[in-house]
Amino acid sequence: MGKILIIYDSESDRRFTELAVPYVKEGVERIDGMEIRVKFVEDAETEDVFWADGIAIGCPTHLGGISWRMKKWWDDRTPEIWFKTDGKFAVPFTSAGSLGGGGELTCQSLSVMMMNMGYFVFGITDYVAKKESLHYGAVFAGEPRAEHAIEACRRAGQRLAEWVGYYMDGRRDLHPLDAKYQRFWELAD
Amino acid sequence: MGKILIIYDSESDRRFTELAVPYVKEGVERIDGMEIRVKFVEDAETEDVFWADGIAIGCPTHLGGISWRMKKWWDDRTPEIWFKTDGKFAVPFTSAGSLGGGGELTCQSLSVMMMNMGYFVFGITDYVAKKESLHYGAVFAGEPRAEHAIEACRRAGQRLAEWVGYYMDGRRDLHPLDAKYQRFWELAD
Amino acid sequence: MGKILIIYDSESDRRFTELAVPYVKEGVERIDGMEIRVKFVEDAETEDVFWADGIAIGCPTHLGGISWRMKKWWDDRTPEIWFKTDGKFAVPFTSAGSLGGGGELTCQSLSVMMMNMGYFVFGITDYVAKKESLHYGAVFAGEPRAEHAIEACRRAGQRLAEWVGYYMDGRRDLHPLDAKYQRFWELAD
Amino acid sequence: MGKILIIYDSESDRRFTELAVPYVKEGVERIDGMEIRVKFVEDAETEDVFWADGIAIGCPTHLGGISWRMKKWWDDRTPEIWFKTDGKFAVPFTSAGSLGGGGELTCQSLSVMMMNMGYFVFGITDYVAKKESLHYGAVFAGEPRAEHAIEACRRAGQRLAEWVGYYMDGRRDLHPLDAKYQRFWELAD
Repeated sequence: MGKILIIYDSESDRRFTELAVPYVKEGVERIDGMEIRVKFVEDAETEDVFWADGIAIGCPTHLGGISWRMKKWWDDRTPEIWFKTDGKFAVPFTSAGSLGGGGELTCQSLSVMMMNMGYFVFGITDYVAKKESLHYGAVFAGEPRAEHAIEACRRAGQRLAEWVGYYMDGRRDLHPLDAKYQRFWELAD
Repeated sequence: MGKILIIYDSESDRRFTELAVPYVKEGVERIDGMEIRVKFVEDAETEDVFWADGIAIGCPTHLGGISWRMKKWWDDRTPEIWFKTDGKFAVPFTSAGSLGGGGELTCQSLSVMMMNMGYFVFGITDYVAKKESLHYGAVFAGEPRAEHAIEACRRAGQRLAEWVGYYMDGRRDLHPLDAKYQRFWELAD
Repeated sequence: MGKILIIYDSESDRRFTELAVPYVKEGVERIDGMEIRVKFVEDAETEDVFWADGIAIGCPTHLGGISWRMKKWWDDRTPEIWFKTDGKFAVPFTSAGSLGGGGELTCQSLSVMMMNMGYFVFGITDYVAKKESLHYGAVFAGEPRAEHAIEACRRAGQRLAEWVGYYMDGRRDLHPLDAKYQRFWELAD
Repeated sequence: MGKILIIYDSESDRRFTELAVPYVKEGVERIDGMEIRVKFVEDAETEDVFWADGIAIGCPTHLGGISWRMKKWWDDRTPEIWFKTDGKFAVPFTSAGSLGGGGELTCQSLSVMMMNMGYFVFGITDYVAKKESLHYGAVFAGEPRAEHAIEACRRAGQRLAEWVGYYMDGRRDLHPLDAKYQRFWELAD
């Protein structure tokens, strides 16, 4: 059974990143046989990270980077975690205040943090609608309301589960290149 | 007189980045007294870079980074240009295939390249519509068709001209913090 | 008089970034007539940021990014600061655990954060020794002990002061391209 | 049998990145049973990419980013390659002109490019000497001459081979967390 942790931070007043969490979870659930834990960052334990084969990690985009609360969690636990999580899988998601407002850069910063922890980070080649993709993690502005934003969150969770299933559980049917669902839209025109 | 160079690369078949160039230019022209040169990258000369106080630099987003033709231009001219352009100003713009598809990362790569050349790169704090900003340069998917995408291109050019006018020509009325036009929209809800 | 703020975070047990602060300050002092404030991040006030024309911002490299305490300071103060600091100047410095260990990426994350706040960020084209530069901010491993690491910290402060003097105080003699000191070493062989 | 492609660009006059290639290859060869192809980028074929389970990708650091020739190769072949290489593994290496001169940023840009192509990119948690690591790929200044620079190149190749062996060939003895060789040095003091 693949084990997936969804760990997230969210602002106290406008909980946009938290609103994405159920969609990420739905995406994971598209792949049967996944065990899932969902943790607000302040409730997460080091053990959750060790338990999980794959992590979907989300936070609000703050100043083009990781929210301090999420960063604190990993900074504080570095001595415990480092050198023990090599080879696990991670995918980021974020709510930014605007498009062009740092969401991609935040996903990239999350990926850098997880690379430092030895994780595999990956790009999702899929388009979820015309001119909408999540090549470096799921990015949306405000709450995930548009269908493509919702599907981006789902797809991030799904892809994480597919890779965990494929590489960690040896389920050879799960390779995304063999996927039956639509992964590609015509490029922008 | 402030001198602005708009240098761009664009794909041969789908010239989306090129379609943004007139808008960037319009933005520069909002500030009177600016001299402007527009150059397709293969027609640009080293002298254009020396001539310009500020550069708006645009290319298609290719694999989350700078298009090779734009990169080649600067790579090839590094020995001529380096150590001669410190303290000039630069702002990036890009057409990506999709939102979430690497536009911000490409702007960031363009900014890194210009930082290496000694340029000041800057963030545009403005919103150009609700949930639409250009904090790291103007980003759009496909051609710049939506009003906010067009305004993002204009705003990038305008801000570049304002800074060049303010810092290089001593025009104290041009500081964006004193701007009369709308720079802020309500944050995403 | 140019006003420079050095704001830094440092680990409680190994205060390597703090050890760099006196060198950054020495670099600023190479330019006469600069007013300087030095603040540990938890002692800094929003007013320090408004006061300063230029900021040298330093933190330890934690997981390839900004230390959470530094990030928290800016995240928390975003509503107060944002849209009020456009056009100021910023340069980053960091102590990483190792070379190749994320120092450049941390400087880049600091630059992104400051770009989001409207600051100009800049590359320092200088070499401070053969094969040693600070093109994206001053980077060193552990404490700044080697002469080139110390000089990188000084040069970051100096360049910041030069730009503030040149652009904000109109001191035309301060342009780095007219500098009399050695800015270039032979490239690596 | 795991299949590893080492693809590299190098400057025509100072072939520092090319000098790293034999070390990367030696690192791959530490894992028995790996098939290896080494290709200068202009001699590489699209088929090499399809053939390989894992890629070590190296180029000179030019202006804090990917050398244009390497970028051109992938840009030009995007329509052929994209959506066909999801789930393969990639690790970057680069020769920069200096430490602090953009090597980490170039590795990051190479990783972003490969993420866009669907590859897993990963951090190497190991230290190869005191204060010397390759957390985002192997970085060195000039040619790889110091023992730690040489070992960084080897370690990048070795880790790539370990992951390919572990995840693609099911060789459960190859997980780096079970490695018998020294992976950790005391942190900087």
